[in-house]
Amino acid sequence: MSAELDPLDPVALTSALVRCASVTPEEGGALVLLQGLLEAEGFRCTRVDRNGIANLYARFGEQGPALGFNGHTDVVPTGDVSAWTRPPFSGEIAEGKVWGRGACDMKSGVAAWVSAAIAAARGGVRGSLVLMITGDEEGDARDGTVALLDWMDAQGERVDHCVVGEPTSRQGFGDMVKIGRRGSLNARIIARGRQGHSAYPHMALNPLPALAGLCARLAAHELDAGTDHFQASTLALTSIDTGNMATNVIPAEASARLNIRFNDAHDGAGLVAWLEAEAAKAAEESGVGFELRARVSGESFLTPPGRLSDLLSAAIEAETGAAPELSTSGGTSDARFVKAHCPVAEFGLTGLTMHQTDEYAPVDEIERLRAVYARVIAAYFA
Amino acid sequence: MSAELDPLDPVALTSALVRCASVTPEEGGALVLLQGLLEAEGFRCTRVDRNGIANLYARFGEQGPALGFNGHTDVVPTGDVSAWTRPPFSGEIAEGKVWGRGACDMKSGVAAWVSAAIAAARGGVRGSLVLMITGDEEGDARDGTVALLDWMDAQGERVDHCVVGEPTSRQGFGDMVKIGRRGSLNARIIARGRQGHSAYPHMALNPLPALAGLCARLAAHELDAGTDHFQASTLALTSIDTGNMATNVIPAEASARLNIRFNDAHDGAGLVAWLEAEAAKAAEESGVGFELRARVSGESFLTPPGRLSDLLSAAIEAETGAAPELSTSGGTSDARFVKAHCPVAEFGLTGLTMHQTDEYAPVDEIERLRAVYARVIAAYFA
Repeated sequence: MSAELDPLDPVALTSALVRCASVTPEEGGALVLLQGLLEAEGFRCTRVDRNGIANLYARFGEQGPALGFNGHTDVVPTGDVSAWTRPPFSGEIAEGKVWGRGACDMKSGVAAWVSAAIAAARGGVRGSLVLMITGDEEGDARDGTVALLDWMDAQGERVDHCVVGEPTSRQGFGDMVKIGRRGSLNARIIARGRQGHSAYPHMALNPLPALAGLCARLAAHELDAGTDHFQASTLALTSIDTGNMATNVIPAEASARLNIRFNDAHDGAGLVAWLEAEAAKAAEESGVGFELRARVSGESFLTPPGRLSDLLSAAIEAETGAAPELSTSGGTSDARFVKAHCPVAEFGLTGLTMHQTDEYAPVDEIERLRAVYARVIAAYFA
Repeated sequence: MSAELDPLDPVALTSALVRCASVTPEEGGALVLLQGLLEAEGFRCTRVDRNGIANLYARFGEQGPALGFNGHTDVVPTGDVSAWTRPPFSGEIAEGKVWGRGACDMKSGVAAWVSAAIAAARGGVRGSLVLMITGDEEGDARDGTVALLDWMDAQGERVDHCVVGEPTSRQGFGDMVKIGRRGSLNARIIARGRQGHSAYPHMALNPLPALAGLCARLAAHELDAGTDHFQASTLALTSIDTGNMATNVIPAEASARLNIRFNDAHDGAGLVAWLEAEAAKAAEESGVGFELRARVSGESFLTPPGRLSDLLSAAIEAETGAAPELSTSGGTSDARFVKAHCPVAEFGLTGLTMHQTDEYAPVDEIERLRAVYARVIAAYFA
């Protein structure tokens, strides 16, 4: 921790955080740095580490209402370091950008909120500011935000609303706030028949026609036509494999993989039941045995437009002149855990370079993000 | 060549041929042995070698009618020699069997015919006996029987009917004569779309639903209900492959493989045209690009029941007490080449151990096969 670091400067703080090489599961000094800054400002800090993953809980104020922030300081690996124009953990500020792994996803988001929160704390807040910063968002996410929420439940620590600082802007800063996400389900369908010679198909039980028919039916099925805040759910076949190069052999087994992204018209268990029913039907028609291996990696969730999204929208419009789109699109984030605890919405930078070589965050976006967050905090406690 | 070898003894001759290690494309001394025996009996012999493959043409008599025999002395590899109870090229006669690679497929068939033909030649035949023995039946079959037939065409050498000595008996000696074969076609269908993220299928063009649908349609299509001498044609999907293990990626390409065994209601070109039309339909419906790679490895053929099958049936019935089934089932053989030259039928031992470890031919079956062949030759020239 640099003695000269000004906690009110989100750009300098982003740079300092990037210099911590916190590739999951390494803490890399990032949470230690934040804890030092926050404790110096009167935040009550607790490290909530679990299974080798470092997590930081920080709270200013003990009364309600409590506004939470969730973010992560862990980053994805750099890949080939020699491919980077600047060393990936340099945190160099040049050409109007902070450069390095995590600059965009999402040390800048953490820095912007910490900076805004410290400024608010110095002025006093009529309620509480709570930060949940994890070191396990890019990894398995089993011992990160989940560990923090488990600990909070056990301690009776509550927040009433929570902002997640992931990069959500798409084309330009402030154009999108995320108020939910589709769920995701991966399934593997294994079809088992009986091997045989291609010349005598009646002596074998070929699993491929039944599997192909099932796949075609699943892919053609319309799951729904979309809901109020969600696009239509989708099913994508991602692979069908057999691995039989012998043209005179009917294979005993083949399998298919698929991914379903589903909205709030479904839940994972219902979709698994539907897949199982379809597979059972195909099994009955064909005599082929079907095994379904399904994993729901996230349920769909939605924080319906309301106080939190209104606050974010107003703050963004005041800063950029345009209200953001309230979206439920995109991949997964720790908001899927937070939503069980309280209403949650996500807002952050444009994510153009996240996970890429020469990742960066524009200095002006970091400053505008801090300004939006500051407006949200001020309005929340007004 | 053993000085004491009695060419009238098909068991000793089988054993002598097995001792020639004639794994394709090695001649291994087998054709040299046969040529020596046949020339000693007045057969006019010509080696018709091509591209390193040895083939033997032998003729006794110059007038018509000419009865041909087609067989091969090449054998498939032994596999792990240590797995054999006896050395694979020992030709040992024990437990009522001749043991070794090629004993069953089909040095015993060659030995039985050569033995019967020499006996007939010694008595004089009213016509010609022609032997076409190849060293390339188990390999690519490009320079074996085809080379012999090409040479015969060029020389004006004709035969009027031909017996192929492949193992055709199924459950017991003499239960099946083959008078034709189904054709075989292998095809690979490659479907090409556009890669994308599983979460945004509308941004990609997934080739899998269209490929699965096409495969299901092809597999469900009834090619025919069988013809007078053939079972129904069959289509077997043998593989569908993508190789995409990333659950969040829609693949750009996938492919399917299939094998069609077809009767005389079809020809290869017609089936390729049908597959192309089906693929074109699927392409039009889906926008996915389809490429068809088809290879016809053999057209169907039939020698309708007639003089040759009558002769074989009568000879078998006289020897075993039961007439054989006239069948068009099973895999490929050099009969598919001979049929363009003259009527052809196949008859030989039971093929239980062909291509296996500890391959053998029962002594009594070899002797009965020689007796059937002798009856066929006698009746043909009667």
